Amino acid sequence: MRTIERLSRYRRVLTDPSRQGVSYIFSHTLAALVQVTPSQVRRDIMGLGCAGNPTRGYRVEELLAAIATVVDDDQPQPVILVGIGKLGSALLNFFRGHRPNLQVVAAFDNNPEKVNRIYQGVRCYTLEDLPRIVAAERVSAAILAVPATAAQEAANQVVFAGVCGILNFAPAPLFLPAHVHVESIDLTTALEKVLFHTRHHALSSVVLNPR
Amino acid sequence: MRTIERLSRYRRVLTDPSRQGVSYIFSHTLAALVQVTPSQVRRDIMGLGCAGNPTRGYRVEELLAAIATVVDDDQPQPVILVGIGKLGSALLNFFRGHRPNLQVVAAFDNNPEKVNRIYQGVRCYTLEDLPRIVAAERVSAAILAVPATAAQEAANQVVFAGVCGILNFAPAPLFLPAHVHVESIDLTTALEKVLFHTRHHALSSVVLNPR
Repeated sequence: MRTIERLSRYRRVLTDPSRQGVSYIFSHTLAALVQVTPSQVRRDIMGLGCAGNPTRGYRVEELLAAIATVVDDDQPQPVILVGIGKLGSALLNFFRGHRPNLQVVAAFDNNPEKVNRIYQGVRCYTLEDLPRIVAAERVSAAILAVPATAAQEAANQVVFAGVCGILNFAPAPLFLPAHVHVESIDLTTALEKVLFHTRHHALSSVVLNPR
Repeated sequence: MRTIERLSRYRRVLTDPSRQGVSYIFSHTLAALVQVTPSQVRRDIMGLGCAGNPTRGYRVEELLAAIATVVDDDQPQPVILVGIGKLGSALLNFFRGHRPNLQVVAAFDNNPEKVNRIYQGVRCYTLEDLPRIVAAERVSAAILAVPATAAQEAANQVVFAGVCGILNFAPAPLFLPAHVHVESIDLTTALEKVLFHTRHHALSSVVLNPR
């Protein structure tokens, strides 16, 4: 797990409503909740420039402020969505208004029936419009929700237009220049793994309890 | 990456329509497409009991049949969805009809306005009905799409009802018995990582090109 991911998770845990009113936290408590080692937590917090109190732990408010300076940006961050299929519209719905300074500014799809339609307040363009809109809106990140067969080509176009960060939902490996950061989420493989385990578990129960 | 995940990805690559008509594949080709080492591919294929041809590689049809016997089950696999919010309905839409032998048999939500409604052909129940339906439908896997604060409690109830595999979309760590297999997907953290990188990339460009 990378630093940014751990910081994001610390914040999720620290802002959980069930911990409202908790002003101090120990590194080992935070470590258990995020499932990393206490020494990792202490290193990360040292990196944030926060100091703890030996008897009370770290001040939650101070941690949250320090995490925000690293993870967040004051500027709204324009993001585009490529692919307005079932998954794309679902993601648009999920990410819209999800973080105050994250904004999906445009959607792209090559289906002529979708182009120029408004999806949840976001206009859909053809992929030909990518360079113009990425430049005009100063977009640096894209959510890719296209079929596997279209993923590499769409990623190429997005990167060519100037995007350097991609959240990829297409179940396909992407080959891109080294400066582009890609996070891939493969929903189908994740569910297949769960189902495989449950079958395997059922089988071992059968072996253990032959009747 | 675990075996099951690699097998799932091999299949994705081998069934890609752009490779239609390709009957043989070399381990190094498959390795490059899935982004693992060729020797890993050869070990996995040996584990499947398939033998390659030194001059032509592995027969695609044979690989696909062998992967299916490991990854798939002939029986339809009943899955439940817990949480019919924005994300839950999106996931229902995505997974419904996605694999022939995967079936979302019931949805659960504690919002009284949702209970007893039909969502894309799937009825929504209260969480009190979990044990009854999990037993009746022989459900072993659940998709969890509830808020972080509700995740642990919902997971407890699901596991208590007999489920041993969870695909968790709640941005919260789950503490569960060891026999339960959990795959977690945190959409928000994934996007935060991409955005963090793009800001960082923009900053280093500024430093490199001060004007």
